[in-house]
Amino acid sequence: MKTDTSPARGMRDLLPADTAVRDHVLSAITGVYARFGYQRIETPALENIDRLSSGQGGDNEKLIFQVLKRGLPAETAPGALRDLVDLGLRYDLTVPLTRFYGANQARLPVPFRSLQVGPVWRAERPQKGRYRQFYQCDIDIIGEPTILAEAELIEATTGALSAVGLDDITVRLSDRRLLAALAQAAGIPAGEHARFFIILDKLDKIGWDGVRGELAEAGIPRQACETAVDMIAALQDLPAGKLAGALAATVPGLADEAASDLAATAACLDRLAGTRPLAWQFDPALVRGMGYYTGQVFEITAPGSGGSVAGGGRYDKLIGRWLGKDVPACGFSIGFERIVDLLHGSQPPRNAVAVLAEPGVHPADALAAARDLRGQGRVTEVIRRSGKLPAQLTRLEAAGFTSYLLMREDDAAKPQPRPLGGETPHQQD
Amino acid sequence: MKTDTSPARGMRDLLPADTAVRDHVLSAITGVYARFGYQRIETPALENIDRLSSGQGGDNEKLIFQVLKRGLPAETAPGALRDLVDLGLRYDLTVPLTRFYGANQARLPVPFRSLQVGPVWRAERPQKGRYRQFYQCDIDIIGEPTILAEAELIEATTGALSAVGLDDITVRLSDRRLLAALAQAAGIPAGEHARFFIILDKLDKIGWDGVRGELAEAGIPRQACETAVDMIAALQDLPAGKLAGALAATVPGLADEAASDLAATAACLDRLAGTRPLAWQFDPALVRGMGYYTGQVFEITAPGSGGSVAGGGRYDKLIGRWLGKDVPACGFSIGFERIVDLLHGSQPPRNAVAVLAEPGVHPADALAAARDLRGQGRVTEVIRRSGKLPAQLTRLEAAGFTSYLLMREDDAAKPQPRPLGGETPHQQD
Repeated sequence: MKTDTSPARGMRDLLPADTAVRDHVLSAITGVYARFGYQRIETPALENIDRLSSGQGGDNEKLIFQVLKRGLPAETAPGALRDLVDLGLRYDLTVPLTRFYGANQARLPVPFRSLQVGPVWRAERPQKGRYRQFYQCDIDIIGEPTILAEAELIEATTGALSAVGLDDITVRLSDRRLLAALAQAAGIPAGEHARFFIILDKLDKIGWDGVRGELAEAGIPRQACETAVDMIAALQDLPAGKLAGALAATVPGLADEAASDLAATAACLDRLAGTRPLAWQFDPALVRGMGYYTGQVFEITAPGSGGSVAGGGRYDKLIGRWLGKDVPACGFSIGFERIVDLLHGSQPPRNAVAVLAEPGVHPADALAAARDLRGQGRVTEVIRRSGKLPAQLTRLEAAGFTSYLLMREDDAAKPQPRPLGGETPHQQD
Repeated sequence: MKTDTSPARGMRDLLPADTAVRDHVLSAITGVYARFGYQRIETPALENIDRLSSGQGGDNEKLIFQVLKRGLPAETAPGALRDLVDLGLRYDLTVPLTRFYGANQARLPVPFRSLQVGPVWRAERPQKGRYRQFYQCDIDIIGEPTILAEAELIEATTGALSAVGLDDITVRLSDRRLLAALAQAAGIPAGEHARFFIILDKLDKIGWDGVRGELAEAGIPRQACETAVDMIAALQDLPAGKLAGALAATVPGLADEAASDLAATAACLDRLAGTRPLAWQFDPALVRGMGYYTGQVFEITAPGSGGSVAGGGRYDKLIGRWLGKDVPACGFSIGFERIVDLLHGSQPPRNAVAVLAEPGVHPADALAAARDLRGQGRVTEVIRRSGKLPAQLTRLEAAGFTSYLLMREDDAAKPQPRPLGGETPHQQD
């Protein structure tokens, strides 16, 4: 009797063809990051539930897989479900990183360049292309207060994406402080800022008309909205050299430091664009969802990705939650699964040899022949001969083998590998 | 106020020095396995709780981290705790592999060579060197009924261990069927076999006298125990050529096929030992804990490891549990954490350059200088100058930097990197 063997709901198995793309992408990305000095760290998949539910994760906190305490009685008494739980699976890599930094700060350099790659879990409603376990790939610089961090994160991440073949990308840059100052300057009531940002965040999907409609529907004063939209339009795509001046003129409430920081990052991107193809734009409409950002935010879009392939920003207050004193931090997260989806099917086939051992061949002989081929640098598998030879060879070719070595019991001479494909071999061959 | 930032109980953070060793070990092992044609697969960390609790996991099933169903009411009603749970974290990679094979069989080659590397979770009592999340590294051959599988798994795994520098290892080989036939032949009552195996399994730790003592204490008939112990002693360390004959003479109840299979695997190991250093022994006292083994079992010990560094065997009935028809399977699992512990501290230091930017230097200039050095193949980090230069250089050296490039605002000439260490630099240098 066959049992249901599908993975748990919303989860998936990764087959060799899947992991081949993933490993290729990962190795290209981490190779670039390593040259920038990012060092890999790893935190446990499970964190204490209180830490995961401390409000940093926004809506993701509703999606936590919660783990039961061990040693509970088999029968539950009436009480709070919450009391049965002590751990949860991490929903991102940022909250664990800030805890990690708090715990290990004394053993880490300043600034600390962290690279994290690993699965996170969210109990989202399963849908096509979205899984409840997926990988994130984050770099973070902790302890660097200046835009050296922002500019380097963008340089490293665009370099990493280029290394996996994503060249036609665009970096969008803004600052969390700008949008707040702009909303203020436009006369949007303070209590409506959050809703204004949420609606503005849909600009990519619904366009300016859609945004205007939703703002009106939300009852945000029409005149203020129009002013805000005009300000955003006036600032969008400004070149690096004009940024500081235009920001000071258009959004007087914006701190000088925020304006000059944006200009400095923009200057770094301009300079970088002189050394390799790089498209970037200043985009005051960029929102970035997470509540913990405190300064510059950025995002990378690629054609065909239907959204961003990477996003990040500065979060100077998050580590302070654990440490009791603020530590400047800035991170960039690559949407690993989205990149893998974009690149699927672009992998070269494996180039393996099959040692085909007829039934009478002693395993020690077959293994020795394979050993020789591996010694010559070939990926080699020993496979027993079975069924009709042409059919077996066809199967091998489909499985990515490019040549085979047929071993028979009475072989006197040492056989040589033959290429697969092309003309059908004869049985007596 | 500083909050507790330690990882969850029994878990640990991996720092850059830890991941460097782990990545090195992993890359060496998987490099060897790839040449044998093992292809990496990945299953989700979470499996349906019923699958994890189906009795295959032995005692490990008591150590499952259980995950609460989503959408439960906040207040629990009296009832079975078990009803609140639908998922669990995997406690090994074998049970998920058999489910994976059931789900994806049609898309996998025959035989299928699987490589799995990843974390598993067990809620064991925390103790030094044991963690509740740890990595396993398994290779398995599914669909190969002959000892080609066993002999290749042993060749590949000893090769992988050699690639990480573990050369002084010993392979121990036996067969699950042998011990059962031997206990039977010695007259140990069938109901006492399991206890006899459990006590025998402690031979490494407590020696023959200890085993005899515990057997007596357990009330297993003394004469039968003596006979069994004598038979084991007579068979131990037999050379390949004498195995089949001695087994037939000493343990007449053993199937001929089991005896000749052992002889064939032994012949393969002898042949392999002619090509590279390899110590192996036939060891009828080898037990291997898991109940699912059906044929040959093997284990690798290394000096200083205090136990085995790898273990495995044939499990021809496990996949049948899901599929309704048996599929031959054989696997070898490397004790990844134990290997990492053995090798810790043997890593070469990183060889990085620090671009030290004085406060007045524009970030774009510092990033450009770093870009040049990376272009020359150096791992390069940009770090702001702060505090006294000699102190900062000392910190950099401790963090693994081997040279630095000091950038000042008024630099006219392009500075060159200087080596770190040796004489103390002058501030004006």
